Amino acid sequence: MNLVARRNSEQRETTMVRVGDVIIGGPQLVVIAGPCAIESYEQLLSTALEVKRLGATMLRGGAYKPRTSPYSFRGKGEPGLEILSQIKALTGLPVVTEVMDARDIERVADVADMFQIGSRNMQNYTLLTEVGKTKRPILLKRGLAATIEEWIYAAEYILTEGNDQVVMCERGIRTFGTYTRNTVDITAIPALKELTHLPVFLDPSHGTGRWSLVSPVALAGIAAGADGLMIEVHPQPDLALSDGKQSLNFEHFAELMAKVGPVAKAVGRKIN
Amino acid sequence: MNLVARRNSEQRETTMVRVGDVIIGGPQLVVIAGPCAIESYEQLLSTALEVKRLGATMLRGGAYKPRTSPYSFRGKGEPGLEILSQIKALTGLPVVTEVMDARDIERVADVADMFQIGSRNMQNYTLLTEVGKTKRPILLKRGLAATIEEWIYAAEYILTEGNDQVVMCERGIRTFGTYTRNTVDITAIPALKELTHLPVFLDPSHGTGRWSLVSPVALAGIAAGADGLMIEVHPQPDLALSDGKQSLNFEHFAELMAKVGPVAKAVGRKIN
Amino acid sequence: MNLVARRNSEQRETTMVRVGDVIIGGPQLVVIAGPCAIESYEQLLSTALEVKRLGATMLRGGAYKPRTSPYSFRGKGEPGLEILSQIKALTGLPVVTEVMDARDIERVADVADMFQIGSRNMQNYTLLTEVGKTKRPILLKRGLAATIEEWIYAAEYILTEGNDQVVMCERGIRTFGTYTRNTVDITAIPALKELTHLPVFLDPSHGTGRWSLVSPVALAGIAAGADGLMIEVHPQPDLALSDGKQSLNFEHFAELMAKVGPVAKAVGRKIN
Amino acid sequence: MNLVARRNSEQRETTMVRVGDVIIGGPQLVVIAGPCAIESYEQLLSTALEVKRLGATMLRGGAYKPRTSPYSFRGKGEPGLEILSQIKALTGLPVVTEVMDARDIERVADVADMFQIGSRNMQNYTLLTEVGKTKRPILLKRGLAATIEEWIYAAEYILTEGNDQVVMCERGIRTFGTYTRNTVDITAIPALKELTHLPVFLDPSHGTGRWSLVSPVALAGIAAGADGLMIEVHPQPDLALSDGKQSLNFEHFAELMAKVGPVAKAVGRKIN
Repeated sequence: MNLVARRNSEQRETTMVRVGDVIIGGPQLVVIAGPCAIESYEQLLSTALEVKRLGATMLRGGAYKPRTSPYSFRGKGEPGLEILSQIKALTGLPVVTEVMDARDIERVADVADMFQIGSRNMQNYTLLTEVGKTKRPILLKRGLAATIEEWIYAAEYILTEGNDQVVMCERGIRTFGTYTRNTVDITAIPALKELTHLPVFLDPSHGTGRWSLVSPVALAGIAAGADGLMIEVHPQPDLALSDGKQSLNFEHFAELMAKVGPVAKAVGRKIN
Repeated sequence: MNLVARRNSEQRETTMVRVGDVIIGGPQLVVIAGPCAIESYEQLLSTALEVKRLGATMLRGGAYKPRTSPYSFRGKGEPGLEILSQIKALTGLPVVTEVMDARDIERVADVADMFQIGSRNMQNYTLLTEVGKTKRPILLKRGLAATIEEWIYAAEYILTEGNDQVVMCERGIRTFGTYTRNTVDITAIPALKELTHLPVFLDPSHGTGRWSLVSPVALAGIAAGADGLMIEVHPQPDLALSDGKQSLNFEHFAELMAKVGPVAKAVGRKIN
Repeated sequence: MNLVARRNSEQRETTMVRVGDVIIGGPQLVVIAGPCAIESYEQLLSTALEVKRLGATMLRGGAYKPRTSPYSFRGKGEPGLEILSQIKALTGLPVVTEVMDARDIERVADVADMFQIGSRNMQNYTLLTEVGKTKRPILLKRGLAATIEEWIYAAEYILTEGNDQVVMCERGIRTFGTYTRNTVDITAIPALKELTHLPVFLDPSHGTGRWSLVSPVALAGIAAGADGLMIEVHPQPDLALSDGKQSLNFEHFAELMAKVGPVAKAVGRKIN
Repeated sequence: MNLVARRNSEQRETTMVRVGDVIIGGPQLVVIAGPCAIESYEQLLSTALEVKRLGATMLRGGAYKPRTSPYSFRGKGEPGLEILSQIKALTGLPVVTEVMDARDIERVADVADMFQIGSRNMQNYTLLTEVGKTKRPILLKRGLAATIEEWIYAAEYILTEGNDQVVMCERGIRTFGTYTRNTVDITAIPALKELTHLPVFLDPSHGTGRWSLVSPVALAGIAAGADGLMIEVHPQPDLALSDGKQSLNFEHFAELMAKVGPVAKAVGRKIN
């Protein structure tokens, strides 16, 4: 592969991705936290204030949710974006949210500081091309069964349009395993670091599918060299409209954040 | 699952899918053949005439090709559709071609008798919803890492829009195997037959990735109960712009078609 | 690979494996049938008589059963072998049974016309070497996660000891799938045929794990070129001590056997 | 599962496994290092002295090597054990080495302080039962395609014989991935910690198959809660008779050990 995405003699350093005031890919680790789906103003506000207080510097929250069944909750859509916009203004946290359809890009761009491309769309090439044209930072989640090479090629679809603000996000792959929702491919983090110049994130929430496993796997990601974490947090995971089983409540998120600092320091990084 | 797609007491019989004069899901097996990508008028014409002569009743050919690398040949686009339109008029064969983006549906609908949803888009839910609204027959390929259940849910996205003209197409799943491009899940054919009322196809070309294995696996599909086959055929596979390794030349396609009849008869089906 | 197992200019023809009067690898398909585990004299006798009447020419039955949990039924051991010996004498059917430990080879050899090496032991190299020394025919099941290449190398461990009487048995591989117990890799049949000179069997019972799927997959195996089938049959599957869900009862086995002949004939083979 | 291996109200604490003076499962992390295969007295001696100097407290080295091909180097056998015995005496390091056949247990037991059960033998139930009877500590590697549940059941085969001195060793599973030899299932570490009371190790050498990825993945394992690491070290990896690509040379092992301490401390553990 002779790709724009490759780390090579011309591009040795990790690309800095700027989302508002947040810099991804530098010495400082970045934690993005928030609910899987935006459910209400109160839910998002309370979560945003709490994760900000605990050290997260970006907010996540889905308005358009890809769901396996057409009969599941598919997100609040535009009203969700409106809530996201208000909470962003209130808290000052830059926000990342998923865009699933090229026709939604403009609308989502009104609110989102960073577009998320979800796993199911990692090879939706027309969508990749369109977000490539926007020059907005992109969080590119790994496809469920994507090889490292295919994932890099997906990033290349964006980079080749002139947008180099791409963050790769490992979120677990599909294997024969049944105890966890997916299998976190921890090795993907250093592998991407040696192959590309793009920052790498880990999403241990989707990666494990079980809240009790999120913290140790999050720490593993940092030790392996990740530039940041994306964590699902919900005020009351038992009542969440989606992904409750893998969401941390505020207390567990606080416990995780208390552990992140020492591990970050041990590998020469810092958090806040 | 209590789904529209389910075979149950209300819907015991296999749904007949009508593509022009061709009926999929009845006693007659249907063979769709043609090149992976439309390369030229001559290429498509010679292939169409030959596969028709040998018993294929539908033509395939890609104008928009999803490719892992942005630097690979991505299809001829609109000029490819124009060629497809001409060959369809000349040969009278109904055509199936892939649609990758909801914004292309109208344009592709001018030519296509049947839309193909490719593996990478099996969970592109906005695309599924849009083709559901068209009422045009859909060939829904299985996602690379889709479970049977997820695949049925993808069909449900189309059915729930009021379009029941859906054909499921097994094309191999991703496993640890390295000798073949994918692993054909032959059991998916009878499994879908017992779970849903939708016709089921097999694409042994993508399933195996090696032309020498296409014929035995195609016959296996018929023996397992498939309603039809989708086969890549190219006048000169060595010169193909994509998927040459898995394409049959005319001679090998003739050999396959000679074997299809007896196996079809052995399981109570017929071909032409 | 330059292996004894390879089909090449020196060894073009399929090796004939002789088990008593039964020849595996010739024009005649061979069906091995019987219960997963030997449970009693009556169970094995009634099954043996019925499968023989319906066209099976070899009997299977496990005395030593590898089980995931140490607390599951692990087979009757020597008393099971004794029953197997009696039923073999009564019916004249050659028998195949599993050997799990090199220390059991002599004892099992008193009864078994053919040794089965199970999936879990496909890479138990000391066991492969020891059965290689016996010159007894071997049914070598594919390991759960074995590539085609690794499986051929496992056969090579036997062949290199001077024993060429090896039959390869596809029995499904482990994938992300959940609807079936394993995923039958139907393409392995023609792949092994082009790579090696060894006969190839299919075990659709373990391959699917569901009795309703056994018949269509068995027919697929024959259409793909298998030299024979291994089918689990039990007088009362609901009461079986192991693998009841995937066992055919006598009626369903009769239905399968009625379908095997026509498909065999369609691909130029015969059964009885 | 109601198993001896389960962490429950009767057995809340992690079982301490004692290998000579080394305690696995306590606050102190344990690093086992050494070559894949014992090649010569000089090779093993130089490696043992160096890894001891750098903080490893146990030595690994294979005399019996399971190899995919019968024509690969399969270990030195008894002469290898003799070398291992001498180096153990010289350095005072307790040693772990693989036993592949129940018939070798006595011979291996003369030297080994701990038996390794390799991935290919994780479901070799007669071998598990026999090492269970010995009461010797066991390092039980995960099978290539073993679920967490199957792995725990394999341990149960040993525990149910009265031997609770079992250490579970994650070493990567087989997935569709091609960049690495296996896919390290990092989540298995905390998963086993919540399900069982057994200590858990990580082998990042087999897990990744690439030396450049060993260090970051090793640190990830510690951050995720592993009780120790098993690392392949060779004086000249390029000349190794097996697994050279994944072996650290002395310099890289020194670099890894320098990083282990801070990460261990960050998660409340220590090393030496």
